Amino acid sequence: MALLVQKFGGTSVGDLDRIQGVADKVKGFRDKGHDVVVVVSAMSGETNRLTELATTLQKQPSPREMDVLLSTGEQVTIALLSMALEERGCPARSYTGGQVRITTDNAHTKARIKKIDTERMRHDLSEGRVLVVAGFQGCDVDGNITTLGRGGSDTTAVALAAALKADECQIYTDVDGVYTTDPRVVDSARRLDKITFEEMLEMASLGSKVLQIRAVEFAGKYNVNLRVLHTFQDGPGTLITLEEDVAMESPVVSGIAFNRDEAKITIKGVPDIPGVASRILGPVSAANIEVDMIVQNVAADRTTDFTFTVHRNDYQRTMDVVAQICEELGAKEHDGDSKIAKVSIVGVGMRSHAGVATRMFQALASEGINIQIISTSEIKVSVIIAEKYLELAVRALHSVFELDKEPAAENSV
Amino acid sequence: MALLVQKFGGTSVGDLDRIQGVADKVKGFRDKGHDVVVVVSAMSGETNRLTELATTLQKQPSPREMDVLLSTGEQVTIALLSMALEERGCPARSYTGGQVRITTDNAHTKARIKKIDTERMRHDLSEGRVLVVAGFQGCDVDGNITTLGRGGSDTTAVALAAALKADECQIYTDVDGVYTTDPRVVDSARRLDKITFEEMLEMASLGSKVLQIRAVEFAGKYNVNLRVLHTFQDGPGTLITLEEDVAMESPVVSGIAFNRDEAKITIKGVPDIPGVASRILGPVSAANIEVDMIVQNVAADRTTDFTFTVHRNDYQRTMDVVAQICEELGAKEHDGDSKIAKVSIVGVGMRSHAGVATRMFQALASEGINIQIISTSEIKVSVIIAEKYLELAVRALHSVFELDKEPAAENSV
Repeated sequence: MALLVQKFGGTSVGDLDRIQGVADKVKGFRDKGHDVVVVVSAMSGETNRLTELATTLQKQPSPREMDVLLSTGEQVTIALLSMALEERGCPARSYTGGQVRITTDNAHTKARIKKIDTERMRHDLSEGRVLVVAGFQGCDVDGNITTLGRGGSDTTAVALAAALKADECQIYTDVDGVYTTDPRVVDSARRLDKITFEEMLEMASLGSKVLQIRAVEFAGKYNVNLRVLHTFQDGPGTLITLEEDVAMESPVVSGIAFNRDEAKITIKGVPDIPGVASRILGPVSAANIEVDMIVQNVAADRTTDFTFTVHRNDYQRTMDVVAQICEELGAKEHDGDSKIAKVSIVGVGMRSHAGVATRMFQALASEGINIQIISTSEIKVSVIIAEKYLELAVRALHSVFELDKEPAAENSV
Repeated sequence: MALLVQKFGGTSVGDLDRIQGVADKVKGFRDKGHDVVVVVSAMSGETNRLTELATTLQKQPSPREMDVLLSTGEQVTIALLSMALEERGCPARSYTGGQVRITTDNAHTKARIKKIDTERMRHDLSEGRVLVVAGFQGCDVDGNITTLGRGGSDTTAVALAAALKADECQIYTDVDGVYTTDPRVVDSARRLDKITFEEMLEMASLGSKVLQIRAVEFAGKYNVNLRVLHTFQDGPGTLITLEEDVAMESPVVSGIAFNRDEAKITIKGVPDIPGVASRILGPVSAANIEVDMIVQNVAADRTTDFTFTVHRNDYQRTMDVVAQICEELGAKEHDGDSKIAKVSIVGVGMRSHAGVATRMFQALASEGINIQIISTSEIKVSVIIAEKYLELAVRALHSVFELDKEPAAENSV
């Protein structure tokens, strides 16, 4: 019999009917003899409702008080789910983050977990209770309530699983697993049985928003078996695990990630002298603009072209900052484009396979898609293309790397 | 400069506008140099909303989980009020019952305060902060969240005032003080400047629902100066204090309390033997029916008549229980009446004045009102009359005891 940590997000506990559904599900695991620790989020909409109340009173609410306020959302859910479990004859006990001794630093609204004391939890489990723990929250050493930031419930679940050495940390959500790419774009997108932590990180950060990046990092660090499952449909979901568990069946490319949230800015004719990159990006970060891709090509005529991408919402602000920079640097000109998309192929298999990038570029070329920027890491290749080609590119790559087919053994070593 | 504990109930913090109003008020006191600890309830309607969620899931929700659930109501208010104060440049910090170390027993949903550790509060006050504390809640020694029961916020305020040795505990509410009687019944009802704890207890338990009885008892026990004030109107309110502070100006009767929530039951021809009272009232309490007045007259013919009153909602149930009892006791007959009202005159001045009851009975007689039952204590005389005479009786008594006039010195010693 296993020890399971199960996390249910805001949509899964969005109303009383769904809470009853979650209670049925949890009880099913308990009845099979498993020990269960449940982590829940606030009922969907609640965090926004509370945030609106706060911002009406104070333009920039005190982070400490925001945490006191928002942490009530999960506290309501733990009480309600515990009641629903007890009503089903399943002994349960609720705990806030502070009560279950999730100690964090004191960085209110974005605290990091320092320590978890598992003694009380182990005692409750040994007495046959289901533990229902508030996600997203903890307490600092002085007893002040802290929160881990949006999506922090995933992190709570993984941290509890690590501290309790759980057999599996199950994240229940509204999709039945991690897909080779977005099924809304490619009909034949396939659910992956397994994926490595690294691949999941690349998929998540590139826009497949199934899991919080931080939770995946945490799971990788402590080697917690993480599984993504659908709350209200049965199925095996996707297991996110160490590379060694996956590699044998791993295809070259595991998935295609993409997003259309970015805009690119290019500065042409920048003097090719040391320190130029920081003189460009310094003022950009100073304006609190986050930069994603950065590409600088080799110099010609002692000048170079410098391109980077930012979130599309920051596009106009970035262009203003860049205009100023260009003047100071004596750059020839600058331009930008917000009608772009980023497409990436991701897979640990790439490490041992040459020519993967070439296959990608050929596939795009054969569809007549021009590549504007290329950026690579050990397990992914990303390109920027015109936004209008996004779907076409994703479908072409999905097909070329045979992601619609179950991985075959010869494809993998 | 004084140390004030100020309590604002659910209606006073019922929406964001009102919370802003409370923040203005609190800041006003802070600006005058007072140290302020604010105790707040849940925003009005919130406790009912949460209770409904719970009872939909579980018919009799676990008391422990009810406390986890309901305590979020006050937690939301403390965060919002702290934000509103900080927005006004008034440093503030919120605390849940557990954080401010209000330790209670573990009687969930009706816990009693055992201990309050004031060190952290004193530190915050010395740094110039307003403390905003969640009323109605605490923690047991194991860190489980407890609540003090409905109206427990008054008790929290008084307990904090006692622990901190505050100069005054101010209860803000929707009336501007304690009145000689209900102004809706008697136009000339007058706000009292002062009243003793004992009088307030008699007034409160008899239906003038301004303050929780428990809070008044607590204030009396620890000699906390308690003041009832209107949240959104300026005025001195009513100070509830020790008898010695009041007696000099105290009239014979301080107020007229009344209610029409009761019904009376009479059993006639009960054998006049030892143990009869308990044989009648035993089954009544066993049926969870609370008894208010009990009157037994001297025996005639070895039988006696036994009368008691219960809440009108319990009338029919009580009659059923009594029918059974009568049979067992061999009592002649029983009857009851739910169209009754109880009227009481209350005042510490009665102790030193003879003939007060007589004046009351005369006043009622001169209006042609028949008295059905009489019951007296040291500082009150209560009568049961037909409900239809209630307003007439209250007005007559208010006038006879000159409650519409400011108390004169010669009236008091």
